[in-house]
Amino acid sequence: MQLTQFSDFSFRVLIYLAQLPEPGSATINEISDYFKISRNHLVKVVNNLANQGFILTTRGKGGGLKLGRPAHSIGVGEVFRAAEPNMELVECFNMKTNQCCIARACGLKGELYEARRAFMAVLDKYTLADAVSSYSKGESQLAAGENPPTSKEPIS
Amino acid sequence: MQLTQFSDFSFRVLIYLAQLPEPGSATINEISDYFKISRNHLVKVVNNLANQGFILTTRGKGGGLKLGRPAHSIGVGEVFRAAEPNMELVECFNMKTNQCCIARACGLKGELYEARRAFMAVLDKYTLADAVSSYSKGESQLAAGENPPTSKEPIS
Repeated sequence: MQLTQFSDFSFRVLIYLAQLPEPGSATINEISDYFKISRNHLVKVVNNLANQGFILTTRGKGGGLKLGRPAHSIGVGEVFRAAEPNMELVECFNMKTNQCCIARACGLKGELYEARRAFMAVLDKYTLADAVSSYSKGESQLAAGENPPTSKEPIS
Repeated sequence: MQLTQFSDFSFRVLIYLAQLPEPGSATINEISDYFKISRNHLVKVVNNLANQGFILTTRGKGGGLKLGRPAHSIGVGEVFRAAEPNMELVECFNMKTNQCCIARACGLKGELYEARRAFMAVLDKYTLADAVSSYSKGESQLAAGENPPTSKEPIS
């Protein structure tokens, strides 16, 4: 139960852009260097975000990436749906391709649908502005980087 | 956002055993043939289920697998936690291994924790008995197999 790297990187790009001071523009190289992630991966992520209207890209000198809409109007659930390549928790979520022979009588499918709805309902409560709100409170460590703490929340 | 094949197959084994008439015993070969899935994969799944106490295994002639506890006492969330190898939606869920440099200030992590809690809270409402309840209502198609319908629930 993990987000794909593609979704993870999509959120990182949007969060990076959302916490920049006006005019909120950055280059792919800058983001790639900051997160220490492959530029090639990032190009695909950025293309998808641009195709979905989450960011605007400008080519040439002085060009770069910036948010396509204000951060408070970009839903976290909306980004998640646009970035995750497969929202089908199990194969019977797509009955056109399903091969599991108990799909029709199995009650687990309905339970998993309900769990996915609950998961998405939480993400749909939040916007990109919420995800970067700690930066605007002066707690930003984005420029300096940070050493992660060692705590780990228990699985609940 | 998909369950691993390992979790998927774990649930299939338990559902298969739960809907059998008393004494509710089956062999790995029988389950492997029924679902048309690799016996080798199934052996690993069965070993994990046995180690976690969800099933009992008996070797030799007349041996096989059966549920280790009544179906109504096996939680769906409990099986999910025992079968999914990684519940960390993003790398910053484990701060010991995290490499993402915005983890401390990023608000997305809290939102994803909340979404995971909502997801697990739904699964924790249900037991294996709920997942097979349609079989006990005489709707079982397990013996005959079935052709899946063509409907597909929209992503919500």
